[in-house]
Amino acid sequence: MNLILLESNEIDGERRAQLTGERARHIREVLRATVGSELRIGIVDGPLGRGTVAAIDGGASSAGSRAGVVLQCAFDRLVPEPPGIDLLLAVPRPKVLNRLWAQLAALGVARIILTNAERVERPYFDTHVLQERHWRPLLIEGLQQACDTRLPAVSVHRRFRVLVEDELDRLSDAAVRLVADPASGATVASALAGRAGTRVLLAVGPEGGWNPFELELLEAHGFAPVGLGRRTLRSDTACVALLAVVHAALRAASPV
Amino acid sequence: MNLILLESNEIDGERRAQLTGERARHIREVLRATVGSELRIGIVDGPLGRGTVAAIDGGASSAGSRAGVVLQCAFDRLVPEPPGIDLLLAVPRPKVLNRLWAQLAALGVARIILTNAERVERPYFDTHVLQERHWRPLLIEGLQQACDTRLPAVSVHRRFRVLVEDELDRLSDAAVRLVADPASGATVASALAGRAGTRVLLAVGPEGGWNPFELELLEAHGFAPVGLGRRTLRSDTACVALLAVVHAALRAASPV
Repeated sequence: MNLILLESNEIDGERRAQLTGERARHIREVLRATVGSELRIGIVDGPLGRGTVAAIDGGASSAGSRAGVVLQCAFDRLVPEPPGIDLLLAVPRPKVLNRLWAQLAALGVARIILTNAERVERPYFDTHVLQERHWRPLLIEGLQQACDTRLPAVSVHRRFRVLVEDELDRLSDAAVRLVADPASGATVASALAGRAGTRVLLAVGPEGGWNPFELELLEAHGFAPVGLGRRTLRSDTACVALLAVVHAALRAASPV
Repeated sequence: MNLILLESNEIDGERRAQLTGERARHIREVLRATVGSELRIGIVDGPLGRGTVAAIDGGASSAGSRAGVVLQCAFDRLVPEPPGIDLLLAVPRPKVLNRLWAQLAALGVARIILTNAERVERPYFDTHVLQERHWRPLLIEGLQQACDTRLPAVSVHRRFRVLVEDELDRLSDAAVRLVADPASGATVASALAGRAGTRVLLAVGPEGGWNPFELELLEAHGFAPVGLGRRTLRSDTACVALLAVVHAALRAASPV
């Protein structure tokens, strides 16, 4: 936890926040903060800032999650820009998606558009892993790791064709659309060369890949195929690898 | 499993291999192969090839792991080159390392040099996750995913300074040495620009980072700091992200 994220309704009119639970425990036991310590804080979808520890209830001996920490908060004027990538992801197996949530938020995506595809199994849609009360804390965990405040927007779509034909233009304003295709010899770097400041919509298929109809539909809607080379990766490894490579290519394309 | 990997001693004088267990189950139940089916095969640290199913014991009804598959094998003349990256990695928490083994082999590393560092906890060295009988099957799993035969060489070093000063030149012939440093503004792409065909030794520190002495020692031994941008990543995410970005930069630097 490199940043303590607060919800806006946790901060009162005098810019004080009363924390309990995991964040309070982290401040006391990991950061070993004392009254007067300064911590990096942020508001979900709001600015970053500094929190000064105004009070700590009890000591190491007091009851774990009940022992609170009071922070006096000061925030920057500007809110961080959302990351430059939107992710269109075929719903992975629940176990894989569960591992991915925090990593996606840490790597940086503005939006996670989860979709059906032929090779997505039906039961994947009925799992608690797709419920907001499950994924929201995991996305927050990733933001606290990466020191960002911008919570990815999440939506789930059961009809791939309707999504691509009718809904995608509204969901993502990215000027460049890329689809990961192990068969493609084109690199992410070449696809983004000279596109400084571009936002990218990246499509990552299911384990086993998009079927030919799905790939054609994506290409017909502006997605350019890109590959990572000869090696076939597990879908979660591929997802992390692709986001890292696209971010690196966007940095390289940007004026320093 | 996109490739069935065989140990060289599994192949007899007539180039036949008798498989049981997980690989036989995969051939029967996932690939649904029948007599005459052709499969992608390879020999650990040897060539890729094709295996023709010569016999399948029993049907779907026969006893799981005992039911064997006989492959008639034909191999390429050339053995794949080892991947262009050696990895120097501070020993991660056992749970994290456990998740990483297969991903490292899939992403592609020729050598995994595990080292101590100040922020590596002592008990990490005493876990079964560091034992060859544990990691070898996981590395094989990663190779079978990525269709490669080259098993990463693994070594474990408890003395960081001795490793860097006395052993590293012998362990890795990489011409470029990079150390991941979140504080660095230098990119992997700029560090590798114009270095076509280069081999890279990439150093990734512990959760919490190298201490200043360790970072200085690495820099004194030719490691150039590179970063992935402002976002701080968990060490396993960082490791996957860095390997992907270095591979992409090596591809970009190579003549197509």
